[in-house]
Amino acid sequence: MTEARLAALRALLDEHALDAILLSRSANKRYFSGFRLGHGEEATSGFSGTLLVTRDSNEILADSRYVEQAEIEAPAWELVRTSRALDVELPPLLLRHEVSALGMEAAVVSHADWSALAEAAPGVELHAMDDELVPLRIHKTGEEVDAIGRACAISDACFAHLVEFVRPGMTEREVAWELESYVRANGADGLAFESIVLAGARAAMPHGRPSEAVIERGNVLLIDFGVAVDGYRSDMTRTLFVSEVPEEVRRYHDAVRDAQQLAIEALAVGVNGQEVDAIARTRIEAEGVEPYGHGLGHGIGLETHEPPRLRRSEAYTLEAGMVFSVEPGIYLPGVTGIRIEDIVALEASGPRLLTTSPREPIVIG
Amino acid sequence: MTEARLAALRALLDEHALDAILLSRSANKRYFSGFRLGHGEEATSGFSGTLLVTRDSNEILADSRYVEQAEIEAPAWELVRTSRALDVELPPLLLRHEVSALGMEAAVVSHADWSALAEAAPGVELHAMDDELVPLRIHKTGEEVDAIGRACAISDACFAHLVEFVRPGMTEREVAWELESYVRANGADGLAFESIVLAGARAAMPHGRPSEAVIERGNVLLIDFGVAVDGYRSDMTRTLFVSEVPEEVRRYHDAVRDAQQLAIEALAVGVNGQEVDAIARTRIEAEGVEPYGHGLGHGIGLETHEPPRLRRSEAYTLEAGMVFSVEPGIYLPGVTGIRIEDIVALEASGPRLLTTSPREPIVIG
Repeated sequence: MTEARLAALRALLDEHALDAILLSRSANKRYFSGFRLGHGEEATSGFSGTLLVTRDSNEILADSRYVEQAEIEAPAWELVRTSRALDVELPPLLLRHEVSALGMEAAVVSHADWSALAEAAPGVELHAMDDELVPLRIHKTGEEVDAIGRACAISDACFAHLVEFVRPGMTEREVAWELESYVRANGADGLAFESIVLAGARAAMPHGRPSEAVIERGNVLLIDFGVAVDGYRSDMTRTLFVSEVPEEVRRYHDAVRDAQQLAIEALAVGVNGQEVDAIARTRIEAEGVEPYGHGLGHGIGLETHEPPRLRRSEAYTLEAGMVFSVEPGIYLPGVTGIRIEDIVALEASGPRLLTTSPREPIVIG
Repeated sequence: MTEARLAALRALLDEHALDAILLSRSANKRYFSGFRLGHGEEATSGFSGTLLVTRDSNEILADSRYVEQAEIEAPAWELVRTSRALDVELPPLLLRHEVSALGMEAAVVSHADWSALAEAAPGVELHAMDDELVPLRIHKTGEEVDAIGRACAISDACFAHLVEFVRPGMTEREVAWELESYVRANGADGLAFESIVLAGARAAMPHGRPSEAVIERGNVLLIDFGVAVDGYRSDMTRTLFVSEVPEEVRRYHDAVRDAQQLAIEALAVGVNGQEVDAIARTRIEAEGVEPYGHGLGHGIGLETHEPPRLRRSEAYTLEAGMVFSVEPGIYLPGVTGIRIEDIVALEASGPRLLTTSPREPIVIG
């Protein structure tokens, strides 16, 4: 597995006339070496876990806090102990490996680090390789789809639990905490991101955070959450009705569900993500409301949001092995919000849903 | 409060001949505007919450997912709705405000964003202002120290709970989950970072993650955790003895405790952090073992790790209002690890401990 991954990475060296590639993105550190960072740990880990790959060497950088972890998690990699800044530690390595052209991840390396390195290693050309690295992780193997599927199965089970658990009078935060407790007790390593649990008009915030707001009869309750299993993520959204269903809101829910269904039916190898987004968008506009301002979907894997994108502003031709969300929504600020989100694995024969919770309107409490 | 903060920020415009400053760091988004991102949410939030401050305007950028949140959390700021990349959205704003010199945060803006913006706005000089922004948040007000103190008090209460809770036979992950459950039920908004709970020889990993490893009699149990309250963080470490105390390990624990005590006693306004680090390091070397490879301490506030640093490689003169950790350790790979960490607020009269849990050896189980 790892050897095939490294071979694909090394192929980039020849294709782009590079002597080495430096990998800084957490998901790539893990994908290529096994080195793991926790959720949000990038804020404090410095550049530990950074990988330097040349034609004939695989090195992992780690400061003293991460040395033992790197030895355990990435045993096949040669460990380089670091104690100072990247622009001090890296130039001697580049010199030793005779690197004069280095590929880097410009989207995750800070401008400060990049420019300090450029200054400290003036003989080395630095090339942004972000776009060229995307294809290496965009098609999931069967094992990877299985891992995402395990995360999705925990999400489905958790959702079924929440349908039984949630009652009017609870706060958004109580529900979010029950959700997290459930997934941690049922096989997830943790959440993929902080859960979104929003009641009533608050559901109009596509990324709002759970608050002390009380869930009341007649509210919608939007729940958007994901879990991580072996590094792979799930992501799903359902919008529940609390005790009763206002007619207008049910109509919007139907429109979102239709839009999602039409989009899923349009998924096929060779189709462009923009077209699928347009199909869902058009269905919602037909309801006489603004469609969602976000994209219809995003790839998912070792990162919650990764390529491909299904949205107006980017053209991705969908291919077998891609795994992504389909999540249309309607948001009426001050009134209500509805979103339905599932994860789809695209196979040669068509789309396969990895999240399988009911998409029909569900009334709780 | 906010006005004084903005005045200090605007003073930088004149001092450095800038027309505007763009703030991208999550902690600065929150400090200056009130806009909040969850733990690790930077991975998916794009540049929502980015602040553009000119001499006479305060603007907050938000894509459709974050528009309503920005209106609620940052009501005093003029909202700019964005839907495309930063290098597309920002140039028209810079033009409208006649910005020809822009301060930015090079340590948090990616090289890709920075260079795309430089290309899209060739008439605008981009200046890295990271170092100049540090003084704005490095001295905490009484209110900020109180918020850090509330987070520390929850940590202390949680630690007392864990001393009663932990028994041999539990796994590291069980303890970590009890810890998280306790702080969430007792007033914390969440963890400041993923807790470190390591038993026996695993404690030699300064940043290891809790595993299914079982806590056994004769182990040490290293617990390093922090919580967030109103955005402000705590951070503390204690190393417990499980059922019995091997003589050699107690000696190392005593050395770490002495080193920490000597360091705390050396804290005073005007002292350099490097000197304090050297005092702790020397005490541990006297024990005939390698001292910790990490720094002795780090500032804490809206970020778990922020300036000042108390370490060999950086010179920070300590001043009243600074709040930071003091955390010496001894790590013997394959054998054991010990660290004791407390948070100190430096006042004109000297250091005040915000975490107050006992530092004597504690035997549990």
